[in-house]
Amino acid sequence: MPTSKLKVVESAGAPAGDGRPQPEAGYKVFNRIVDWITHERIELLNITDRINEIVRKSGIKDGVVHLQSLHTTTAVFINEWQDALLHDVRSFLTQAVSREHPWRHNDPEYSDCERSNADSHLRGMLMGQTLCLQVRNATVLLGTWQSIIYAEFDGPRNRTLAVQVSGV
Amino acid sequence: MPTSKLKVVESAGAPAGDGRPQPEAGYKVFNRIVDWITHERIELLNITDRINEIVRKSGIKDGVVHLQSLHTTTAVFINEWQDALLHDVRSFLTQAVSREHPWRHNDPEYSDCERSNADSHLRGMLMGQTLCLQVRNATVLLGTWQSIIYAEFDGPRNRTLAVQVSGV
Amino acid sequence: MPTSKLKVVESAGAPAGDGRPQPEAGYKVFNRIVDWITHERIELLNITDRINEIVRKSGIKDGVVHLQSLHTTTAVFINEWQDALLHDVRSFLTQAVSREHPWRHNDPEYSDCERSNADSHLRGMLMGQTLCLQVRNATVLLGTWQSIIYAEFDGPRNRTLAVQVSGV
Repeated sequence: MPTSKLKVVESAGAPAGDGRPQPEAGYKVFNRIVDWITHERIELLNITDRINEIVRKSGIKDGVVHLQSLHTTTAVFINEWQDALLHDVRSFLTQAVSREHPWRHNDPEYSDCERSNADSHLRGMLMGQTLCLQVRNATVLLGTWQSIIYAEFDGPRNRTLAVQVSGV
Repeated sequence: MPTSKLKVVESAGAPAGDGRPQPEAGYKVFNRIVDWITHERIELLNITDRINEIVRKSGIKDGVVHLQSLHTTTAVFINEWQDALLHDVRSFLTQAVSREHPWRHNDPEYSDCERSNADSHLRGMLMGQTLCLQVRNATVLLGTWQSIIYAEFDGPRNRTLAVQVSGV
Repeated sequence: MPTSKLKVVESAGAPAGDGRPQPEAGYKVFNRIVDWITHERIELLNITDRINEIVRKSGIKDGVVHLQSLHTTTAVFINEWQDALLHDVRSFLTQAVSREHPWRHNDPEYSDCERSNADSHLRGMLMGQTLCLQVRNATVLLGTWQSIIYAEFDGPRNRTLAVQVSGV
């Protein structure tokens, strides 16, 4: 494997113009709860604008925004928001975890869950229910093609996302 | 894809009653190391109560708790703690990464590892060895069905988890 | 499943010798951007030393270092840095997400992307573009066999990683 050239550059978004760490300018924690209703069993939502709105309201310039979905059959992750690719994301996750496999969670002999949603649990576990992103210059740091995606794997349901912005 | 209705509500767990960010009330970092012995090659442990105990001891009310397992053949993630589903989690991970595949890590011609545990490494990598959760009202924020699960993929072993609570 | 014995020990890396939380000693955020050029379509880079160098420069002793790759067709994760195992990681990810599947993102009828890189997007999504690790004693906390790996899934390209160290 070839060695890549690594270069460190000063960040324009550092707390001060010179990029050096700044002593404490008032550490803050800003908590919000966001909720919505989903309409399909598997559904992908672009929540980037909503998260940026909360970051702006927090008044925090440098730090992180932490997202945590409060449901095991959901996930939060990053990808490009393009219709064709979203179709592929759904196909891939449907293939990667079979709905028809004889999961014990769906079998009344072993489980009292009536939703037959083992596949939803396994998809949520695989993709993860938390996401932490940097806040720089009072906005969520994202690459050109990165969107924040909330995934419903067992809808339609009411869903809740905890958002926490912390930093200075 | 239908547009979902998004609603932002004030969080009861915000630093002050009015939910607005509070200036610095003493940022703290509270570090602990937790360890235990596992008994099976693939084993799932519910560590939710232990993490909550550490969060309570930290005295931190708002912030995050960060979990980091110090071993590549383990993982930390969230799921419902139900016997039938835990059986499915083990089945799924066993299927998703084959133990019998001719992995180079298990081949003495390429590797000096004597544990034949390529599958354990790949499962650990897929599920991740870190998890960051919000702390609100001096407890770990978790949905009704969310438990924190530590996964052993190459036991029995002694295992170590680094826990860090930070915030105000 | 046998119950494992859990033991909490005092952390040598706690802010003070007695391991109790310390009031505010100057919360800081230290931002850097690291970039490099990759040379192959799928390439794994060991970035552990570079991250430790940034953590040392930050002057932060206790806290976290957050890594965020700004590209959807990349990932950041932990694994052992061993040639045989890295070969297995590439094999596993190549198997887990097929390049040849008729993905819509690669189909001009549905997509204007000319890179035919649906597999790269799905690999990046599966492994994740963010990683948060603890900082203790002014170094990145890592187990004996843990290295920080940056994965290129659609090279050769110029790539950018945002690094943020925060804490006291």
